[in-house]
Amino acid sequence: MAYRPLSEQEAVEYVRKLPDLFDRDAALTSREIGDGNLNLVFHIRDERADKSVIVKQALPYARVVGESWPLTLDRSRIESEALRIQQKLAPGLVPLVYHYDSELALTVMEDLSDHVIMRQGLIAGNRYPLFAKHIGRFMAHTLFFTSDLGCDPFEKKALVGKFINPELCKITEDLVFTDPYEDAPTNNFNPLIRREVEAIWNHAELKREIAHLKYGFLTKAEALLHGDLHTGSIFVTETSTKVIDPEFAYYGPIGFDIGAVIANLLLNFAAQSGLQSDPDQRKEYRKYLLETVENVWEEFISQFVQLWHRQAKERSAHVDGFWQEYVVNLLADSAGYAGCKMLRRVIGLAGVADLNSIQDDAARADAERLALAIGQALILERRSLKGSTDISDLACRVTAEFGQEAVL
Amino acid sequence: MAYRPLSEQEAVEYVRKLPDLFDRDAALTSREIGDGNLNLVFHIRDERADKSVIVKQALPYARVVGESWPLTLDRSRIESEALRIQQKLAPGLVPLVYHYDSELALTVMEDLSDHVIMRQGLIAGNRYPLFAKHIGRFMAHTLFFTSDLGCDPFEKKALVGKFINPELCKITEDLVFTDPYEDAPTNNFNPLIRREVEAIWNHAELKREIAHLKYGFLTKAEALLHGDLHTGSIFVTETSTKVIDPEFAYYGPIGFDIGAVIANLLLNFAAQSGLQSDPDQRKEYRKYLLETVENVWEEFISQFVQLWHRQAKERSAHVDGFWQEYVVNLLADSAGYAGCKMLRRVIGLAGVADLNSIQDDAARADAERLALAIGQALILERRSLKGSTDISDLACRVTAEFGQEAVL
Repeated sequence: MAYRPLSEQEAVEYVRKLPDLFDRDAALTSREIGDGNLNLVFHIRDERADKSVIVKQALPYARVVGESWPLTLDRSRIESEALRIQQKLAPGLVPLVYHYDSELALTVMEDLSDHVIMRQGLIAGNRYPLFAKHIGRFMAHTLFFTSDLGCDPFEKKALVGKFINPELCKITEDLVFTDPYEDAPTNNFNPLIRREVEAIWNHAELKREIAHLKYGFLTKAEALLHGDLHTGSIFVTETSTKVIDPEFAYYGPIGFDIGAVIANLLLNFAAQSGLQSDPDQRKEYRKYLLETVENVWEEFISQFVQLWHRQAKERSAHVDGFWQEYVVNLLADSAGYAGCKMLRRVIGLAGVADLNSIQDDAARADAERLALAIGQALILERRSLKGSTDISDLACRVTAEFGQEAVL
Repeated sequence: MAYRPLSEQEAVEYVRKLPDLFDRDAALTSREIGDGNLNLVFHIRDERADKSVIVKQALPYARVVGESWPLTLDRSRIESEALRIQQKLAPGLVPLVYHYDSELALTVMEDLSDHVIMRQGLIAGNRYPLFAKHIGRFMAHTLFFTSDLGCDPFEKKALVGKFINPELCKITEDLVFTDPYEDAPTNNFNPLIRREVEAIWNHAELKREIAHLKYGFLTKAEALLHGDLHTGSIFVTETSTKVIDPEFAYYGPIGFDIGAVIANLLLNFAAQSGLQSDPDQRKEYRKYLLETVENVWEEFISQFVQLWHRQAKERSAHVDGFWQEYVVNLLADSAGYAGCKMLRRVIGLAGVADLNSIQDDAARADAERLALAIGQALILERRSLKGSTDISDLACRVTAEFGQEAVL
């Protein structure tokens, strides 16, 4: 069938024909629940059997904040193939893919309506005690087994070719690594923080460090990344974590995925001054967020290193002491990418609800300034970090410099 | 036509049918001049018209020092496509490609019989005053314009996919970066230097540094490399330089090509104690070799930086001070890869004629020890190098430690 965007009714007819999903005569309901900017998302449900699926269809364009540009349907292939690989390597941590249709750029997958988007959960002040363990496992296994350390060298190179993803990488290259650091028309920031933003535009050392990090994003084909691993791409409950939307997947630097998780926890941390008015509760929640940052790194790195020792196929991986130096470099990379992702969410085109849901402009500006300061410190100090507690110490120190309560 | 290795006569008939090469009734002679290990190489000549071409056909196996393994015919595609890109970016510095046949894995190209293989020229003590300028231009232009700095981001990623070259990369991964640093069955070294080789196998810091360099070879997709840029892949006359045989081409670290050139000049430098018995002439020729090392880097980097300033499309390339830090990192990378390539030529499977043509075992061992010492110093000291004279200073210092004459 040639590509065309489906209607709700067509989506129902489409899934009805697939084997093993619904009874042939099931009474199916269909509801389009996507935001309509990038994809159509149909929620299709058989009330009687209490069964449901998601049908996600890529649209041939992206519409973000008033801009419109064509966007490859190939991202649908990338997403469905990445989900299948992630499911194999980290079972239970991504939605199951039931069916993929390359013509229609459409994937039928597990319905996760019983979960909430983690960003919303954090904004609501909820805690997810298993999140760090789950996301640590997800990253350790998907990144290790697609890297030169844990993947057959022929298979790794074939995967690099399969996940060449220029259009979606270009979005990251522009919106994460370039536009926010100059006076670009795509930027979109609170006028009250113009002075701080201009200081960044004029910070020569910071811009050099970001140029190095961008060069790493462009050139370091280390592992198959999720590529957009912020808290809006993660569904959670208290006991379950599901990573969704890997349409930005490509071979890139491992620290970019880790940095995305850390950055989005720290963005919520910075937003707390506007989200939570009770100082004790704010302090407690910030403590929870920093412990989560530490636990994410610790869970990731302990599993990654364990896989390294037990399952690394690459002979040079077993050279004495190599893994320790690798871990130090990876922590620095992760912190640097976390910093870029914090800065761009404050200055650049796409903000985050953690900050944007703070209604009062001045209160939002305070939170944004803290996010900018933590982001910059992560970039500039990344090579001196020895462990994940150094990241929380850095966040506490910068927060104290803003006259806010010490949090640990 | 389905693949089969051509005979001399079939090669003649093949080129006769191609348009614009020879007269239809030309009296063509055909001579197979390859070493028969990897490729058939036919020299086809029309005496009367004084015209000739080379027909190079890949064989579906490689036979190296008694071992035999199948090897992809796809390397013929890689080679012909790389030659065409190099010809476009560095006109006149590679053989012209007249015709490529994917079925037969065969390329018809310019005959360079009036040139000599540079390694042989250096062993004979000849000088090539334009070589540094030529190879500097070749590397600056081919590497810059295929990198993220000088290439359209979509085109760069498409080229990465086109030049995925797992089989030939595996040869480098094993023979340059792994086998020489442990007691591997592929190694092939002079029994008189066993003590020095075992010291390398037990040198923890050196092995860690080589592991980092290997990881860079595996992951840093910086530019379309030649991939095997030693002096046996370069044809020269006093006025002309032609780079041949890019079948190892892939997207890798820029320093790997630069390091290959430097390493092979320094291997000849080390071999001089066995090649040249007159101390004054030896000193003079070593001086020439070290000046050439310096000039190769200076020619390369001045042109590369000039292209950077004038033609870099990547916006982050123009961040103040980024290029200077990039250049320092690139020199370190180049020295590190040069060191690996020196060590592997002494310890590993494939030696070089510069050393192997020294008949006396003890004299050859002396030269090999010097090559090992320079190679190790390049790897271990690479991060403190400030410019190319630091490389010659390093070579002189190590040579003096061996009790040989100071050379500069």
